[in-house]
Amino acid sequence: MKSFLKVDPDSQFPIQNIPFGIFRRKPDGKPRAATRIGDKIVDLSVLERKGFFSDLLPEDAGDFFDLPELNKFMGSSKRLISDVRRRIQKLLREDSEELKSDEALLRKTLIDFDECEMLLPASVGDYTDFYSSKEHATNVGIMFRGKENALMPNWLHLPVGYHGRASSLVVSGTNIIRPKGQTKADDEEKPQFGPSKLLDFELEMGFFIGKGNNLGKSIPVGEAHNHIFGFVLVNDWSARDIQKWEYVPLGPFLAKNFATSISPWIVTLDALEPFKVKRQKQDPQVLPYLKSSGEWHYDINLEVSIKCANCNDFNVISRSNFKHLYWDVCQQVAHHTVTGCNLRTGDLLASGTISGPDEDSYGSLLELTWKGTKPLNLACGETRKFLVDGDVLKITGWCEGNGHKIGFGEVTGKILPTN
Amino acid sequence: MKSFLKVDPDSQFPIQNIPFGIFRRKPDGKPRAATRIGDKIVDLSVLERKGFFSDLLPEDAGDFFDLPELNKFMGSSKRLISDVRRRIQKLLREDSEELKSDEALLRKTLIDFDECEMLLPASVGDYTDFYSSKEHATNVGIMFRGKENALMPNWLHLPVGYHGRASSLVVSGTNIIRPKGQTKADDEEKPQFGPSKLLDFELEMGFFIGKGNNLGKSIPVGEAHNHIFGFVLVNDWSARDIQKWEYVPLGPFLAKNFATSISPWIVTLDALEPFKVKRQKQDPQVLPYLKSSGEWHYDINLEVSIKCANCNDFNVISRSNFKHLYWDVCQQVAHHTVTGCNLRTGDLLASGTISGPDEDSYGSLLELTWKGTKPLNLACGETRKFLVDGDVLKITGWCEGNGHKIGFGEVTGKILPTN
Repeated sequence: MKSFLKVDPDSQFPIQNIPFGIFRRKPDGKPRAATRIGDKIVDLSVLERKGFFSDLLPEDAGDFFDLPELNKFMGSSKRLISDVRRRIQKLLREDSEELKSDEALLRKTLIDFDECEMLLPASVGDYTDFYSSKEHATNVGIMFRGKENALMPNWLHLPVGYHGRASSLVVSGTNIIRPKGQTKADDEEKPQFGPSKLLDFELEMGFFIGKGNNLGKSIPVGEAHNHIFGFVLVNDWSARDIQKWEYVPLGPFLAKNFATSISPWIVTLDALEPFKVKRQKQDPQVLPYLKSSGEWHYDINLEVSIKCANCNDFNVISRSNFKHLYWDVCQQVAHHTVTGCNLRTGDLLASGTISGPDEDSYGSLLELTWKGTKPLNLACGETRKFLVDGDVLKITGWCEGNGHKIGFGEVTGKILPTN
Repeated sequence: MKSFLKVDPDSQFPIQNIPFGIFRRKPDGKPRAATRIGDKIVDLSVLERKGFFSDLLPEDAGDFFDLPELNKFMGSSKRLISDVRRRIQKLLREDSEELKSDEALLRKTLIDFDECEMLLPASVGDYTDFYSSKEHATNVGIMFRGKENALMPNWLHLPVGYHGRASSLVVSGTNIIRPKGQTKADDEEKPQFGPSKLLDFELEMGFFIGKGNNLGKSIPVGEAHNHIFGFVLVNDWSARDIQKWEYVPLGPFLAKNFATSISPWIVTLDALEPFKVKRQKQDPQVLPYLKSSGEWHYDINLEVSIKCANCNDFNVISRSNFKHLYWDVCQQVAHHTVTGCNLRTGDLLASGTISGPDEDSYGSLLELTWKGTKPLNLACGETRKFLVDGDVLKITGWCEGNGHKIGFGEVTGKILPTN
């Protein structure tokens, strides 16, 4: 499939992708829904108003795309979402005339990416963060509890997770202010207050809930995929020193509530379908409610890089892959709702840090520098244990298709000093 | 101050209270804002439409009370909220003619409580639960970790808290379905799956955020009270067996995500002003950012009772008081936001289980029956270690005023079998 629009072969946004997001024209245009192809934003509200989706979208239901969030569209049936995405692809194909030959319409519909600002794609009711990488859980366990107790007894039996903070979810590009908080060193008697000294990133991916479930009605593992709209990249910023002091016994709280960044484009399950891979064997066997059928792991390359104030370029510091995760997304949904907990359209469920088996595939500085004992060397000559003010952290992700890439773009954030 | 409406001296809703809530006429009236006096609901949208608040509410800002949630009103300035509440009191006073003498208007404005259904008062973005009772934290600590490690080292230095689940907040009267989940007994090798056998309540109170703060801008402890709209009763239902197996290392997740019940009337800080009491001494001294000035503890009587399927009446099983808490609400707000985390209008922050110093003032069955080792005797002859299907659990709360009570009503929930 090819588009009449020129798309660089290295672009993460060919016609095979067609992700969904919310944009506005800089500096203060009205937020609306869009997809992206190459370097162009496609304003979906224009196509909707022109009636290109009128046979697909329910009549008298009002606008789906002339809205500042995707929730209404995301909560639609899987079928409708797939149909709309295919329709967009059809309109953009090189053998399709409807859009291609209407220059006035094209001018209204296509906007240069550089002229736009991307916003959060959805209104997120609740944000949940899992802990589904065995390598990450093991690494952290070794560092904090020693080799013997590295993996907690429950870890292999259920996808451990916790509730995160929804209010401080921000879109890629938002600056991150170094948080202040309480910390206590092992050799100090009293806690101290001040800016976090161990500011870290966490390489994660997350998925948005499409159709939700009612309170009291679990989502069976075999139906979970029908509730997943699509994926984004996630950076779950973490203040390790605050975390260490506060997290017992109720888990991380302030150490992660100051910001969580996500990439702006939601890549659908349909777009990711060709990149499914088998999950690693789960041993011991999981309980029946967690036995997912089919494959719900994906081969998504993930890359983390850093640019300090003195660097001209980004330094790649980690290469990982979404397929390394132990628990799959359907298991996460089934577990989350097994008590009857309701997921709502727009809820975000993140994977937890995605670390691979090798030292250069770890998903946090905590692991990459092994608690700061092995600093990273940057090209500019500086070294890094944890993040320094002025650093820009970038995560990118993409699938390698047949002659094209399906990508997620990036999630970036620059560290600003404590105010 | 007296109202022209007859109010039983034992009512929790005299003219001194004037709480805010959202109601609808049974069975399917439009949700709107109200206050309550005695057994009457006062439809605030009628008073608003009649112009009784027009000099107080901003012009051209649209309706504040003809809405299905209080958020818009809650997000207003403290002064506006106080003024509107005083205006309502003035309209209801025995020496006020405006409302009293207009029978047609009275008929529209006042509705019998029995004809109404109460709904959640606000749209809650994020729900946070603290752990601010020293007695509760100590009791749980002794049971799970022994006397030596009962209170974690951080507990006296910061108000421990965690993010809860906002989607499953329900209003008083909502039935609670016994959750299923994974549990593992100490003497079993593998985890089991099935209905929770150790279903518990938690006696808590919570407060709603009025005006929020921007991401990156902490709320100083001395300004925190300006961000608090008012209080409700909270029952943070907990599945102890699920909790025990899942909670390490990231805290409670499924054990509490199936439901949290709240009372429908938000009692304002203004109404609670006469019931302020000194906080117990905090030793060791807290860090400066947590030093609250003024008194932000309240003398609120709390009572928990249970009615099983065979009981005719409720059995009181605990009498506690909000004043027993170690950390105050301003310290909680200051701590929550010290990293720059943003609170939004409508966010709910709960206290954690409020246990008093005596055995009959504990705020959970876990503590009242000491992990099930000391079952409670009910009047009907049954005993209880944890909640049984058919049980109705009720929490009430009130302040003893001078010849009147200022109350919160109740939060109830009936346990239904797993479906």
